[in-house]
Amino acid sequence: MNRADSFGGSCPVPLGDQPCIKLAHGGGGRLMQQLIEEVFIAAFDNAVLRGGHDGAILDLQNGRTVVTTDSFVVRPLFFPGGDIGTLAINGTVNDLAMCGAKPLFLTSSFILEEGLEIETLWRVVQSMRKAADAAGVLIVTGDTKVVERGHGDGIYINTTGIGCVDHSLFVSPPRIATGDTILVSGDIGRHGMAVMGTREGLAFTTQIESDCAPLWSTVEALLEAGLEIHCLRDATRGGLCSVLNELAQDASLQFDVVENDVPVMPNVRGACEVLGLDVLQVACEGRFVAILPKNESVLALEILKAQNEFAAMIGHVSSAQAGLVTLQTPIGSQRILDMPAGELLPRIC
Amino acid sequence: MNRADSFGGSCPVPLGDQPCIKLAHGGGGRLMQQLIEEVFIAAFDNAVLRGGHDGAILDLQNGRTVVTTDSFVVRPLFFPGGDIGTLAINGTVNDLAMCGAKPLFLTSSFILEEGLEIETLWRVVQSMRKAADAAGVLIVTGDTKVVERGHGDGIYINTTGIGCVDHSLFVSPPRIATGDTILVSGDIGRHGMAVMGTREGLAFTTQIESDCAPLWSTVEALLEAGLEIHCLRDATRGGLCSVLNELAQDASLQFDVVENDVPVMPNVRGACEVLGLDVLQVACEGRFVAILPKNESVLALEILKAQNEFAAMIGHVSSAQAGLVTLQTPIGSQRILDMPAGELLPRIC
Repeated sequence: MNRADSFGGSCPVPLGDQPCIKLAHGGGGRLMQQLIEEVFIAAFDNAVLRGGHDGAILDLQNGRTVVTTDSFVVRPLFFPGGDIGTLAINGTVNDLAMCGAKPLFLTSSFILEEGLEIETLWRVVQSMRKAADAAGVLIVTGDTKVVERGHGDGIYINTTGIGCVDHSLFVSPPRIATGDTILVSGDIGRHGMAVMGTREGLAFTTQIESDCAPLWSTVEALLEAGLEIHCLRDATRGGLCSVLNELAQDASLQFDVVENDVPVMPNVRGACEVLGLDVLQVACEGRFVAILPKNESVLALEILKAQNEFAAMIGHVSSAQAGLVTLQTPIGSQRILDMPAGELLPRIC
Repeated sequence: MNRADSFGGSCPVPLGDQPCIKLAHGGGGRLMQQLIEEVFIAAFDNAVLRGGHDGAILDLQNGRTVVTTDSFVVRPLFFPGGDIGTLAINGTVNDLAMCGAKPLFLTSSFILEEGLEIETLWRVVQSMRKAADAAGVLIVTGDTKVVERGHGDGIYINTTGIGCVDHSLFVSPPRIATGDTILVSGDIGRHGMAVMGTREGLAFTTQIESDCAPLWSTVEALLEAGLEIHCLRDATRGGLCSVLNELAQDASLQFDVVENDVPVMPNVRGACEVLGLDVLQVACEGRFVAILPKNESVLALEILKAQNEFAAMIGHVSSAQAGLVTLQTPIGSQRILDMPAGELLPRIC
């Protein structure tokens, strides 16, 4: 109680010059990071929370249990390659997989808007069931709330996942080491562009399907090959750019990435160019970054390619400058790849 | 996949004559029950989910781990005796306690509205921290999403709780037996009236404070006394009336309740009368129903009264008619206490 009492009644951190919540506070970029650090972590501070990875490893009986939570507010609810239901399952399952945990159980909680068609909800719930089956998880409990017409967007979903770690690796940022290779599990940017294209009614993006998919089987294949995985992180909000910056910061190491080696589909690249978006900042929902020792990177790539032919090695880790991410551009120059502010693509998950 | 595939693409259950979600679908009454059974359980069907209590008991390693989830959309965010943050902690902690589980860990996920003042969020987060400390739980992971101005109500919160059962009782509806005594842990209806009064700006309700509080210590005291608790359920949405109907149905037994024995504060009763509300349908957030063998009821009441002087025995269980709840009115007649439809008090948690 001492700690709680010491907070007092007023907000000590006005988040710089931000008196109000902006869309960017949910955008996976710097502002969200600031909000989490200065408001939530400051208030909830404890050792498990400070672990700071995608999920919390709990000291339950024997074995390591991992729990992770995510709310989904994607707009529109349906997009090429998935819907909010697919996303709500895969997003949380993937957060568990990124901790090296086999996904076991999910909770699901709905905030529904008055006036939502039951048919729409039904379709979403079917997608959830199919995605849960495909990912091998059980949805074990849930909750439903309804808000008045105009106070929601049809459906918001929270899923919380529980998984178990049955190997001895601690897959987490502090394990990243100088000389490690950085790989990506497939072509990037499809999810964000699929949602964006549907939302804005952009004809030239209609062939772009979301990459939304469960990632545990790929992670399991890497683990079963006996690879010493140092870190995994799915490239969701803020895209590859956010993930690389987060991990470089958490590991206090420098990441050097070669832009030409980052796999991007031509239609995704074209759509990004037309819209003036940096594809490195566009969210995926079925792609992850894997970081492991250089001498294991060829085998790792082989395993990743068996699942997705566009998997690639995109860079390596050095000790030059803690927290820095550099990008070698196609013309050979090197630039700093900074953390995105988060305003780019709201409501994509 | 066979099960999922068999659902097909259209909604087989149009929920009677309800093509659209109504507020009542979140009201804790019959319509919500129907929605859960016909949409969610129908789609997600599995043995753990079908267990159907407030939380899911997971078969993790040794010991019994319980998980439960709840989203909070209360309006207004602040009310006498608490706020959405207090509620988000106590609501989930109490669902664990009602399973006989000691609350250990919580996840918290926020859906914030663009334009929300950081100060407001900060106050809510402080309340969460204080409530978590008071309940002895750690918030171990979280998530933040932001929706555009006008698409939320400032703050929606999901909390998911994990707890452990370290005794041999299975506290759940199937354990309820003929002859059992029904107790309530304190006076009812305060939370709903506190929120309602604030929302509607009703002067005569200003002295009514929410009963929002953690319940584990009370449950723990009952367990430590060695009582053979058959079932516990907190009287939240739909109030005492919903809880009694749910449990009578789940246990396939009849509950007979004496209206005069149900503790209600005079100001709460007065406010309900003015507004034409049935206090039995008004939500509490810190009161529960306990059902246990008659020969243990005196000791149980003594323990409950040590925490709240208004705790009372309110009725008993018989085998006359499965699923029926009867109410002996103050004038001595008996009436059926039916499940509320759920339209009464939206957005109270």
